[in-house]
Amino acid sequence: MVQVNVLDSPYAVTVEPGSLGRAGEVLRGLTKAPRVGVVTDDVVAPLHLPALRKSLAASGFEPVVATVPAGERHKTLQTISDIYDALLAAKIERSTPVIALGGGVVGDMAGFAAATVLRGVPFVQVPTTLLAMVDASVGGKTGIDHAVGKNLIGAFHQPMAVVVDPEVLRTLSPRELRSGLAECIKHDVIRDAAHFETLQRSIPRALRLDAEYLAELIAHNVGIKAKVVSADPFERADRAHLNFGHTFGHSIETVSNYRYAHGECVALGMVAACRLAHRLGMLDAASVDRVIATIAAAELPTGGLTLDVGAIVDGMIFDKKVKAGRVRFVLPDRIGHVVIRDDVPAEAVREVVESLRA
Amino acid sequence: MVQVNVLDSPYAVTVEPGSLGRAGEVLRGLTKAPRVGVVTDDVVAPLHLPALRKSLAASGFEPVVATVPAGERHKTLQTISDIYDALLAAKIERSTPVIALGGGVVGDMAGFAAATVLRGVPFVQVPTTLLAMVDASVGGKTGIDHAVGKNLIGAFHQPMAVVVDPEVLRTLSPRELRSGLAECIKHDVIRDAAHFETLQRSIPRALRLDAEYLAELIAHNVGIKAKVVSADPFERADRAHLNFGHTFGHSIETVSNYRYAHGECVALGMVAACRLAHRLGMLDAASVDRVIATIAAAELPTGGLTLDVGAIVDGMIFDKKVKAGRVRFVLPDRIGHVVIRDDVPAEAVREVVESLRA
Repeated sequence: MVQVNVLDSPYAVTVEPGSLGRAGEVLRGLTKAPRVGVVTDDVVAPLHLPALRKSLAASGFEPVVATVPAGERHKTLQTISDIYDALLAAKIERSTPVIALGGGVVGDMAGFAAATVLRGVPFVQVPTTLLAMVDASVGGKTGIDHAVGKNLIGAFHQPMAVVVDPEVLRTLSPRELRSGLAECIKHDVIRDAAHFETLQRSIPRALRLDAEYLAELIAHNVGIKAKVVSADPFERADRAHLNFGHTFGHSIETVSNYRYAHGECVALGMVAACRLAHRLGMLDAASVDRVIATIAAAELPTGGLTLDVGAIVDGMIFDKKVKAGRVRFVLPDRIGHVVIRDDVPAEAVREVVESLRA
Repeated sequence: MVQVNVLDSPYAVTVEPGSLGRAGEVLRGLTKAPRVGVVTDDVVAPLHLPALRKSLAASGFEPVVATVPAGERHKTLQTISDIYDALLAAKIERSTPVIALGGGVVGDMAGFAAATVLRGVPFVQVPTTLLAMVDASVGGKTGIDHAVGKNLIGAFHQPMAVVVDPEVLRTLSPRELRSGLAECIKHDVIRDAAHFETLQRSIPRALRLDAEYLAELIAHNVGIKAKVVSADPFERADRAHLNFGHTFGHSIETVSNYRYAHGECVALGMVAACRLAHRLGMLDAASVDRVIATIAAAELPTGGLTLDVGAIVDGMIFDKKVKAGRVRFVLPDRIGHVVIRDDVPAEAVREVVESLRA
């Protein structure tokens, strides 16, 4: 159990094998509501909705389920509109919690719907991907994409609880598992040099779904994420460190039209950011190599980009972290520590994106 | 100038003849942003956008304008989508403020867009109707309608400033002016018996657009609203008092398909609520008559309803203030004081709605 102390609404993240089957119980400890909304997608629903339903019923909840099509390309205002329709047609009340059962996309959309339906109802995350477990499920960011870019519409809405069951990762595709490891690598590069060593050695255990190690890994990463967001819930300062790899990554993701998985884009983005830090004289070559080797060990891409470099560079200035027209980069000056730089020459940015084509 | 001290973001409401021409100056005192979003509608734009543009330009702001079609029936997710498109196509940043120039509908939509674009940008209200000045512009409620009911989607988002220029009321239709008076009557019935006396006598001055009196009236009403919302920003307790007349009113508005103006619905709702309070033995007949006489003096409806009574009663249980299936009514036990009752017999509700047909 990891406690997240954010604003005036602290909440607990339960990381425990089998906890999906106890989600109803956890929720019943927090609310007397007779009903609960469940937002899931058409890939996750057949795998995990029956277990969640059973658990909710056992604790006396009547579920109102909205099943949306799976995939980032459906993370749109239209899908949110469908979720509103389902929840409002069932006449949910302000006290009715909404559960996100799924990966980051479902969590972002269910969270945005929960933040805005009836001007905000309680929200619960039951993440089913490693990425969502270690990243999106903690921190209160919710949102959807817009033609102009990713996550450009959204709200901050903290969950009342997060229930993480590492056992559900058995149903995850290897590609999605690797995608989650990208965020684990990111957390250690920005905050924890000692754990980065452990992670480097342990990546094979994660890849072969060693349950014991995964529980440990998730709890460690939730802990880092929780610490960062508790200190800066609205991203006015150091929370921006979590964007390491993401300024490049988001643009790659948009330009690729989501053919790359999120974690794959973050992996490429971290490679670019480390090389940029090195080029600016901030990070030694050995550290760059260590980060790249770890990304490669997780079987994530470190090159081979075939997308248009100019489009990726242009895409970065539309990122919502842009301030007064300047792109802000999160760059490591050693493993375990990053700084924010908004004075990076455009030519250097272009060169490191170009380097991803090799 | 009325100070609103809400949460950790206090803001000032400027109530001053001619202040529309100084909006740029007020805003420049609060932000260094080079640009500003402006959301307005196609009725207000020709009347007041040139003055606002001039004022913004004089203070060095470059405006990004989104003009939406006027009217409550456009207060939809589709219009919000159009506002997102305009703001994001112009690549606004997180520090770019969004101004609402218009009535309550524009304010609600611009506010919701500001609350959710880039997960929240600063928001400024420049209300152009009496209703928006005394009600919607203060309090941070934003939102849109849904087929199931009014304002069912939205967010709490406090403005950074509110600029009220009573002179713009000269362009307002008499019907809209009267609609605003309904909320003024409401504020005094729930909080201020002494001012209710003054208001009763002064309604003719308001109806003939006496500028001096309007400035006084607006400042008084902003003061009441500010006090109520500061004490309870998220409507967990006494802020619900502001819903006096609105439980009936919202349902009348929905059933009428917005043919009634909002203030007209609130007027009918207050008549129904006072009669309900009397029927429950809470309010004496003389007070009921005084409230009804004041509503009538403002040339607002107190009867003559031709809508289906059953549909109005059914509509009330879909209102978002419903808690655990019970409709909560805000009822006066004397002029200047209200209480919340959730134990009202359905038959009594039906009877008072029926009485509005006379």
